[in-house]
Amino acid sequence: MDVNIVAIGDELLIGQVTDTNSGSLARIMAPAGWRVAGVEVCSDKGEDIKRAIDRAFCQSDVVLTTGGLGPTKDDITKTILMEIFGGEPVENPEVLENVRNIMSRRGLEMNALTAAQAIVPSSCEVIQNRLGTAPIMWFERNGKVLVAMPGVPFETVGMFESVVFDKLREYFPDNTVIEHRTFITTGISESAMAELLADFEESLPKYLHLAYLPNASYIRLRLDATGSDKKMLADAADSACREIKNIIGEYIVADNDITPAELLLQKCGSKGIKIATAESCTGGNIAGAITAIPGSSENMLGGVVAYSNDVKTGVLGVNPISINEKGAVSEDVATQMALGVCKLTGADLGISTSGIAGPGGGSAEKPVGTVCIAVALRGKSRSITMHFAGNRMRVVERAVNHAILMAVKMLRG
Amino acid sequence: MDVNIVAIGDELLIGQVTDTNSGSLARIMAPAGWRVAGVEVCSDKGEDIKRAIDRAFCQSDVVLTTGGLGPTKDDITKTILMEIFGGEPVENPEVLENVRNIMSRRGLEMNALTAAQAIVPSSCEVIQNRLGTAPIMWFERNGKVLVAMPGVPFETVGMFESVVFDKLREYFPDNTVIEHRTFITTGISESAMAELLADFEESLPKYLHLAYLPNASYIRLRLDATGSDKKMLADAADSACREIKNIIGEYIVADNDITPAELLLQKCGSKGIKIATAESCTGGNIAGAITAIPGSSENMLGGVVAYSNDVKTGVLGVNPISINEKGAVSEDVATQMALGVCKLTGADLGISTSGIAGPGGGSAEKPVGTVCIAVALRGKSRSITMHFAGNRMRVVERAVNHAILMAVKMLRG
Repeated sequence: MDVNIVAIGDELLIGQVTDTNSGSLARIMAPAGWRVAGVEVCSDKGEDIKRAIDRAFCQSDVVLTTGGLGPTKDDITKTILMEIFGGEPVENPEVLENVRNIMSRRGLEMNALTAAQAIVPSSCEVIQNRLGTAPIMWFERNGKVLVAMPGVPFETVGMFESVVFDKLREYFPDNTVIEHRTFITTGISESAMAELLADFEESLPKYLHLAYLPNASYIRLRLDATGSDKKMLADAADSACREIKNIIGEYIVADNDITPAELLLQKCGSKGIKIATAESCTGGNIAGAITAIPGSSENMLGGVVAYSNDVKTGVLGVNPISINEKGAVSEDVATQMALGVCKLTGADLGISTSGIAGPGGGSAEKPVGTVCIAVALRGKSRSITMHFAGNRMRVVERAVNHAILMAVKMLRG
Repeated sequence: MDVNIVAIGDELLIGQVTDTNSGSLARIMAPAGWRVAGVEVCSDKGEDIKRAIDRAFCQSDVVLTTGGLGPTKDDITKTILMEIFGGEPVENPEVLENVRNIMSRRGLEMNALTAAQAIVPSSCEVIQNRLGTAPIMWFERNGKVLVAMPGVPFETVGMFESVVFDKLREYFPDNTVIEHRTFITTGISESAMAELLADFEESLPKYLHLAYLPNASYIRLRLDATGSDKKMLADAADSACREIKNIIGEYIVADNDITPAELLLQKCGSKGIKIATAESCTGGNIAGAITAIPGSSENMLGGVVAYSNDVKTGVLGVNPISINEKGAVSEDVATQMALGVCKLTGADLGISTSGIAGPGGGSAEKPVGTVCIAVALRGKSRSITMHFAGNRMRVVERAVNHAILMAVKMLRG
């Protein structure tokens, strides 16, 4: 089943907000074989919304709109939907009750603007939004469906996952199946991997498709099998995966779609290993990536953000002489940081970084992008000096992933 | 000047990668009065790319494409561009030289796949990509321009900002001006703010437009003035801003477009205040937000991620009796964490969190979303208990912004 998404909002077009909803909705639908055929981001102007919806219906029988339903006056989506689907504005008492409840739970008073959210086109079926004040509206015409959802990602994704998608699947029973398989690889470039896999890729039947998805410091390799016979597709995908493992096995660190932090926690969880971080240039982002995973507190003790040298020496016990002689950005200091945070917290595994994220602070000897990474495991340590390309954010992102994957490899022996 | 963007890639549609390029390009163009009229995300299929480009040219004379130019075989953008603009594949020696240099700098061998990046349509003008191997291609037809750029954000944004946009502005001299003004507000809901501003908004002339952009724990209020007379627009915008300040001044924490972390560093920088963080449920994300800002090392000493209770007591000196009696998620413990990290690091300002980000760990008394936040400034402290809605990621995001803005307010007295 094909779906088009129209993401409404000037704030998306001018780049003040990034549309993450479309990707989230696509990820929810993919396992059922539903595919996003296109996404259009359009302004809050009526004519733009109308044109985008018309175009979306040219491609798909299901159109999801996100955004354009807030209480403030730049939202005219409801008016446009009445132009397309007919109907007139009516007050929906259940929405009003929902708005009242949410406002009182937040300790806020209901005002006329908020109450106006309960005015909906008579041509739609309302789906109660348990997560916010803007109602979700379901429109039908000539066997096609449009669902208008709010733009706040927490509401959009939460309601789509729990209610809207089930309703869509009931309306459009469908038997297309897509089987996805994903490998996480590291230590090889996209083009080198593609060259190794060229003959294999050439030999794939039409219903199998391979995609390379490079990330900071690793590549996701995704195989899709599309058709109607789930068992046949799964067998074909599994058999192709065995071939992929034969060809590039040495670079594969995981054979499912998993983030480096999830992978680390999986490895640590099975061995009861406690983790601590000691971060300079990554500034808390390694800890942030690990603690983003629910249940991480089973293995994650915490860590130190040692941005200044005084914190490196005073809290982590790094030898000041090492900093003077080799510099804060050195494998020696990174190693002392990783060992130091294990000693400080009682962790088994210490992960540390010290580097120059830029834009300032670089030198001829240690240019921007130089990052020393160390991993300590029960007193033993490994360290490496990397040179990452990119701006500050990208250097940090690469260093975070590289450090976590280095810890994963160390756990494998 | 209107611009349409076509973001190409299956990985965007299936939600494995989020399109951040469009927003970045919009932000670069906005100050010059160039406006993104629409964004379409399309698959790697030739017919989809062609249709998206055709639609984009219906709306704008300038079309930017991102993605679809990598070395692997799912990229067929060049073929489609030759169908649209004519020409035949030719090898560009300068691109080949660039690819060779980049590969050797990365310590990688050049292979046939990478070398193929130097094959470009004869109908385009090549813009050398200093940041990556995929060339940037400039096509013209009937006074319209298409620029095909790579999809890696670092390359796309870097090259657009430094070369491509200047070339576009030379080609399309233009005198539309947009003046933006942005306020950061906190402590008020979107609808309550809109109600306060309703009469003012009603009275605005047509060339002034107000937009509400809610974020986790704060709202950005943006005023746009669009026209041709820069001086007149700037005066009108400034005068409207004075009125806005009169109406909602008490909720405004900044009168420019700035993140909470940038605002905190600005306030600290002028007073020479040193910052440290002590994070439990936010897991390093407050430190991450602060250290994301270039130059933050002037004020940021570092911090402790105290995820386990042992780190709270052992490293930060929280009294174990407080944890037993009041729980780790309590204002008392958060306050001790904020004071403790100041003592540990010598910081003037300590920011701490202790809470339940979920999905597990909640109780009737302290449900998921409960976060205790404390700020300590030279021995004095303030604390608050918040109840944030949303999933794990959103609770953390709200807590990070709330904690940083609480520190900003404390610095104001």
